[in-house]
Amino acid sequence: MHAINEPKLPEGSEAKKHRVVIVGGGFGGLYAAQRLGKDSVEVTLVDRRNFHLFQPLLYQVATGGLSPADIASPLRSVLARQKNTRVLQGEVVDFDVEHRKVVLRDGELEYDTLIVAAGAASHYFGRADWEAAAPSLKSVEDALEIRRRVLHAFEMAERETDPVARRAWLTFVVVGAGPTGVELAGALGELARHTLKHEFRSFDPSDARVLLLEGANRVLPPYHPENSVAAVDSLRKLGVEVRTGVQVTEIDGAEVTLRVGEVTETLAARTVLWAAGMRASPLGGILAERAGAEMDRTGRVMVQPDLSLPGHPEVYVIGDLAYFAPDGGKPLPGVAPVAMQQGRFVAERILRAGTKKAPTVFHYWDKGSLAVIGRNAAVASVGPLKLRGFLAWMAWMFIHLLYLVEFEDRMVVLTRWAWSYFTWNRGARLITTDAAETKPAFKAA
Amino acid sequence: MHAINEPKLPEGSEAKKHRVVIVGGGFGGLYAAQRLGKDSVEVTLVDRRNFHLFQPLLYQVATGGLSPADIASPLRSVLARQKNTRVLQGEVVDFDVEHRKVVLRDGELEYDTLIVAAGAASHYFGRADWEAAAPSLKSVEDALEIRRRVLHAFEMAERETDPVARRAWLTFVVVGAGPTGVELAGALGELARHTLKHEFRSFDPSDARVLLLEGANRVLPPYHPENSVAAVDSLRKLGVEVRTGVQVTEIDGAEVTLRVGEVTETLAARTVLWAAGMRASPLGGILAERAGAEMDRTGRVMVQPDLSLPGHPEVYVIGDLAYFAPDGGKPLPGVAPVAMQQGRFVAERILRAGTKKAPTVFHYWDKGSLAVIGRNAAVASVGPLKLRGFLAWMAWMFIHLLYLVEFEDRMVVLTRWAWSYFTWNRGARLITTDAAETKPAFKAA
Repeated sequence: MHAINEPKLPEGSEAKKHRVVIVGGGFGGLYAAQRLGKDSVEVTLVDRRNFHLFQPLLYQVATGGLSPADIASPLRSVLARQKNTRVLQGEVVDFDVEHRKVVLRDGELEYDTLIVAAGAASHYFGRADWEAAAPSLKSVEDALEIRRRVLHAFEMAERETDPVARRAWLTFVVVGAGPTGVELAGALGELARHTLKHEFRSFDPSDARVLLLEGANRVLPPYHPENSVAAVDSLRKLGVEVRTGVQVTEIDGAEVTLRVGEVTETLAARTVLWAAGMRASPLGGILAERAGAEMDRTGRVMVQPDLSLPGHPEVYVIGDLAYFAPDGGKPLPGVAPVAMQQGRFVAERILRAGTKKAPTVFHYWDKGSLAVIGRNAAVASVGPLKLRGFLAWMAWMFIHLLYLVEFEDRMVVLTRWAWSYFTWNRGARLITTDAAETKPAFKAA
Repeated sequence: MHAINEPKLPEGSEAKKHRVVIVGGGFGGLYAAQRLGKDSVEVTLVDRRNFHLFQPLLYQVATGGLSPADIASPLRSVLARQKNTRVLQGEVVDFDVEHRKVVLRDGELEYDTLIVAAGAASHYFGRADWEAAAPSLKSVEDALEIRRRVLHAFEMAERETDPVARRAWLTFVVVGAGPTGVELAGALGELARHTLKHEFRSFDPSDARVLLLEGANRVLPPYHPENSVAAVDSLRKLGVEVRTGVQVTEIDGAEVTLRVGEVTETLAARTVLWAAGMRASPLGGILAERAGAEMDRTGRVMVQPDLSLPGHPEVYVIGDLAYFAPDGGKPLPGVAPVAMQQGRFVAERILRAGTKKAPTVFHYWDKGSLAVIGRNAAVASVGPLKLRGFLAWMAWMFIHLLYLVEFEDRMVVLTRWAWSYFTWNRGARLITTDAAETKPAFKAA
């Protein structure tokens, strides 16, 4: 079989260029591709989806504040002017590291250098059966499904005449108080307290209960404790009940069972959202096996200081899929800035290969951490500086808009935000197709 | 069973108000509801969906120019401040005109006056099997499915190495050259010629063929012939091949079979879109049977000069579902302005019932017709005036923005349009879930 990216060289043309294949169009893969937009290499970016997703704002789609297209950019469009780069929509199923090939469901791609940036997916700690009862927030489809469930619950509450049953429709539980959980819970609180005001006749939407459950003893565990305290303050103002030190032991469509110390309790809740666990893409496991690399217990592939695999200097793993612990310390977190910086580092390394300028050890420049809780409320750590409230929120807005600029959607998002800031409205509150069934958009020809 | 809208009157409170139930939140139903926002009546608007859809711009969603939320407004949000009005998401399955009840899948609604505005759906002239091969453009899900197919076809073309097979992926057929067909074909032409420029490496997107097929001997048959000629000019400039006097005799996923006079030909085309036939909602047939009313052959219910049913002055049918022929002439077309004016007329009639001011005969004020073909190109008839080109396009933009104003999305749509006007870009080009499977968003409790 011919490789899909095999160059069709006209006779007498120059020698074959160095071929780089990038798997995954998230922050790591896309930033690597952009930095590789030089004539000396030939780049193929392959992704299951035809768009790059600005994941930090996905919770806004899940709560009706933004449309999917507001936070997604077609990969082709972002890379259109980069003549050395080809985008393929396709599903990677295996790697042949010996013959330097990426195996797609319906073809293969040859590489001289491979960058694997396949990211992470939600993880239910061995309780895959919870997935249907408690969707998580990783893809556009997830976000639309969450939006559908949340809005549907309010519709059902309007119809329900039994107060106990209505209470269950109006109880929303978010499991996990990392940044995603905090942002989701805050947005749900806003939705109930402000956006939906005046819209129902059988109940007051601000009576809705939003619970945020966390197993650790504080919210935002990876952040500074000051941030945790500030976040809980802001969440409480939005009516969110925060409970820490709580283990979820069972979830079904109607109830959540909790254990607090020795005590077990159940909570009638129709809508449960999962923001607790992440696990690296299964592609990491396949690659590690083929290349003889090691993984940590969440499925991340252990990489060398230059982000390549031991014994395979031509294979790099970056972003959420990589386990990289600077100086043998704590591994870097699975956040966008790490992936972006790693993408750029690997690109530089490839472009300067063989020269003295090729960087050899990846260093992460930590610009700080940020989580948003609602309008005017966020928490931020920038070095020794801890921000909270309006100032942190402005910083959050500014940084997110800055990143979006590159992908053309800034004006629309800005307009929508300005509009909803002044009106509390969330325009994208549509109950559309059940998005649970996801078909691959790319089929074998 | 208690009716869902049965008022729970506190003891000693005032007498029951006149109850109006409106079925359908399209242009007719929503405009009636808004005009009925008076204290003297109690209004219940029931719709299967939780949003009003600005259907004239649906083709923009199908071609990646706008997101669904840009052209949809939550019905609750539009009617939130109208205290006498309740919105219910529910599915109407029958009418009990004798006892004045609307039967939902899971309950019933009592009315003193009923307004049925259930609209129309696509119709395949007895070839329901064509529906899967040639989706039509009526709902948000339809539009997302068309968007998915069109973008998927370009992705497949990029992967395909056989030129004949690639040609089939790059051939797009629109069946039916009414306003929707003309707008769709024009937008597809723009997409291929401008938006996707530079984005593919195996072919030039402007080589894509867009065919617009029409059975009648000119496009836009209900419009003035001058408009038809202008529309064909504009379409040709966008590379659209227009063929009139053509009958489609077969459609499958790979080919379209045509008959032109006595000659039969086949056309290899992977993407076929249906814009040929409409039929009134099946609710019209149920209502006509229960109330002893007549229907025309497209399922529209024949109404009296005041839009009520013969023998049932308390039941009104409006919009696409109504067959109303002023002075026994041609029936009014199924367009938004007719539905809006009928909604307002019926509301006035109800509010002024028993007074001399109650209007008795509906008069349609025809403000003209408009169809848009692409950037800077549209055709319009306003009385004796025929506009074309840029001027008609500006008129189209202006009128559509004006209507959208009422539903809060104007600023976002305006920004997006301004952006795509200057860049030719279409930001909403996402291939997401296969939207073919639509589950009802409302289930029996």
